[in-house]
Amino acid sequence: MNILEYKNYKTLKIRVDRGFAFVTIDNPPINLMDVALSMDMGRFAFQVQQDDEVRVIVWQSADPDFFIAHYDVSLLDALPKEQPTEKSELPEHKKWMVAARLDPKVSIAKIEGIVGGGGSEFCLSRDMRFGAIDKAIFSQKEAMIGILAGGGGTQFLTRKMGRARALEAMLGCGNFSAEIAERYGWINRALPADEINKFVEELAYRIAMIPQETVNLIKQCVVAAEEKSFEEGLLVETNLFEIAVRLPESKRRMGALLKADGQSREAELSYAKGEQDENLRDLINPK
Amino acid sequence: MNILEYKNYKTLKIRVDRGFAFVTIDNPPINLMDVALSMDMGRFAFQVQQDDEVRVIVWQSADPDFFIAHYDVSLLDALPKEQPTEKSELPEHKKWMVAARLDPKVSIAKIEGIVGGGGSEFCLSRDMRFGAIDKAIFSQKEAMIGILAGGGGTQFLTRKMGRARALEAMLGCGNFSAEIAERYGWINRALPADEINKFVEELAYRIAMIPQETVNLIKQCVVAAEEKSFEEGLLVETNLFEIAVRLPESKRRMGALLKADGQSREAELSYAKGEQDENLRDLINPK
Amino acid sequence: MNILEYKNYKTLKIRVDRGFAFVTIDNPPINLMDVALSMDMGRFAFQVQQDDEVRVIVWQSADPDFFIAHYDVSLLDALPKEQPTEKSELPEHKKWMVAARLDPKVSIAKIEGIVGGGGSEFCLSRDMRFGAIDKAIFSQKEAMIGILAGGGGTQFLTRKMGRARALEAMLGCGNFSAEIAERYGWINRALPADEINKFVEELAYRIAMIPQETVNLIKQCVVAAEEKSFEEGLLVETNLFEIAVRLPESKRRMGALLKADGQSREAELSYAKGEQDENLRDLINPK
Repeated sequence: MNILEYKNYKTLKIRVDRGFAFVTIDNPPINLMDVALSMDMGRFAFQVQQDDEVRVIVWQSADPDFFIAHYDVSLLDALPKEQPTEKSELPEHKKWMVAARLDPKVSIAKIEGIVGGGGSEFCLSRDMRFGAIDKAIFSQKEAMIGILAGGGGTQFLTRKMGRARALEAMLGCGNFSAEIAERYGWINRALPADEINKFVEELAYRIAMIPQETVNLIKQCVVAAEEKSFEEGLLVETNLFEIAVRLPESKRRMGALLKADGQSREAELSYAKGEQDENLRDLINPK
Repeated sequence: MNILEYKNYKTLKIRVDRGFAFVTIDNPPINLMDVALSMDMGRFAFQVQQDDEVRVIVWQSADPDFFIAHYDVSLLDALPKEQPTEKSELPEHKKWMVAARLDPKVSIAKIEGIVGGGGSEFCLSRDMRFGAIDKAIFSQKEAMIGILAGGGGTQFLTRKMGRARALEAMLGCGNFSAEIAERYGWINRALPADEINKFVEELAYRIAMIPQETVNLIKQCVVAAEEKSFEEGLLVETNLFEIAVRLPESKRRMGALLKADGQSREAELSYAKGEQDENLRDLINPK
Repeated sequence: MNILEYKNYKTLKIRVDRGFAFVTIDNPPINLMDVALSMDMGRFAFQVQQDDEVRVIVWQSADPDFFIAHYDVSLLDALPKEQPTEKSELPEHKKWMVAARLDPKVSIAKIEGIVGGGGSEFCLSRDMRFGAIDKAIFSQKEAMIGILAGGGGTQFLTRKMGRARALEAMLGCGNFSAEIAERYGWINRALPADEINKFVEELAYRIAMIPQETVNLIKQCVVAAEEKSFEEGLLVETNLFEIAVRLPESKRRMGALLKADGQSREAELSYAKGEQDENLRDLINPK
């Protein structure tokens, strides 16, 4: 049982169980990212940060038609008209995006409905994204009302799909199916609507088996690959590998694998053929 | 009616109408990028730059078999043999490629035939590219004659498709169908030959609705994402968003959307279901 | 006939013929990357480097089920437990990875079975990768035993498939089919199992026709595109193009092409329609 209680959220239903947090967005009628939803999301981010039991966070929606429609335009319309002073520092929620790339809690967005604007940006700031075929619809239509995807969207989309496709999405303001979103790199993968739950749950389960320190080291390597030259990135990887291979839990798992003859042809074939996870899991975490 | 007249082009047919320029390449027998076509392209680039009415430029071909075969090899063969001095500055046409990334006029290549070499590089330097299935054929075969894709091709292809696929294209010198070109990122998307016109026209129409200042701000964000670290790019986006949200035209459009109850469930569902563009357009630009 | 003999390899079968080296991994029962295989690979890399006749290296496996299972875990388990000192320089095999990006010998991995861990990293460090549909299975499961893909894997995967998919692969530790591996950018392309040999051989044959100096110049352009800004990369390309176009062999090939009327409509159509390679090859290398 979890020591923290996730109470008094108006727009989120939160279920924490055995290392997982399932967070269901429930803000009718369209899951608009309004003041209530934004505040709940911020509060949850703060609370879960202190919850050592949670290893994987899965975001989903209570509404079969909408994941998150977009950010509330009335909040943008209410911004002051005078010219802004140029900022030299990121606002807090963007500092968080930078830091979150190293968060040892892994976040996954499971998108089964319409998601646009700030909702799409929220998904893009998660570690992984999956979309349901014939149900999920992605868009970034800020330019239609003269603005731009200022919640990280311009940076995430360009990095994920490249300049030409990011411009098509952000200037063309079209609707993108899950399949096209996969082909463009907007999401990891498009999945049949009746398989997405099982896929995401199994993925989350496998990720939750990885030692937290290992997750953190891998995320550091990934950020190095994104931000450094190939040569510098390889050096970061080299030093972090030396740490990983000496973790007591790594030693324990390598020993268990070898002791169980886990490099035999039979075992290796089984890992690669679907039953692998059960077998490898049993080797590493014997009941 | 457009104040500028696009006259006396030998190899281009230019039709300018309500914000769009449709430029048809017509240089028989293979749309070779020879002196005549190169000069016409340079002249058009200069002329359209001063034409405030043109917002979107669509490039297409008069020849159903060829978009642009490639650059004229006889011009390359005529280059002097003495060793070159190393340049420390880009030639003019490459300075233009760097600057064009911020051009508020959006350019689209609609490719329905064979395109290779310098023709492919020309397409790669446009903002977006679409290819007709079973008709468009892409290649970058410079290496077969000992040279390389020196018109930006080595940089565009590597950035769009990554090292391994760029090497396959540039060293293997094969022919790539529209479908493979899409999977490799050479083009935005492969479309059925009988749908590509409609798709590109609708896309161009939607893009032409975006305020020019917004297009320019979004392009600045995209370049920041391509060239800067994630943190620096987010800061650029933050400052440009603050400008975008205060544009008078943005204020007008946000107000129109809210006044028409554009965040209702019914309206949001319609935006995502195909009829969205008409509805959203009417909200923003009432007749 | 090749002047060097490739003898006394325990785990590799090497056939060198007319510019090609076909290297067949044969280390039963699972092509484990153990001491024997690692040493043979290192020795081959050193030997082939001095073999001017070899232009293209194709890696394949003698075992229909396994390409390379992974690195031998018992070697990792035997590493000392004391904390490592931070390295400021890459180990030799990673210095080689950096240098190999400019190797004028082109390497291709033809993957028709299971490949994981260090075996996958070996493939990722080749210039190109192709996988057989329904036979090749890719994985990067180091995290299951607490460690990470320290042989370049974290850097290669992030650069090839982006952050979200690299995290899915490295934290989810799943099995990836050839089709998904293609969609994620792990490999260049997934090919039907009965076509992969012909495809790779034809590709290798075309690459072997390219002058070595041209291959080297193109690889320099690609590295510039990966590591420099767009503007700096274009400048590198500009200077290397000026060298390429003045190579005597380039002059000869351009002359041969023009002399044979190789820019005619008929010739150009033939290049793009499948019979192109024979025709263009004959122009350039008349029998």
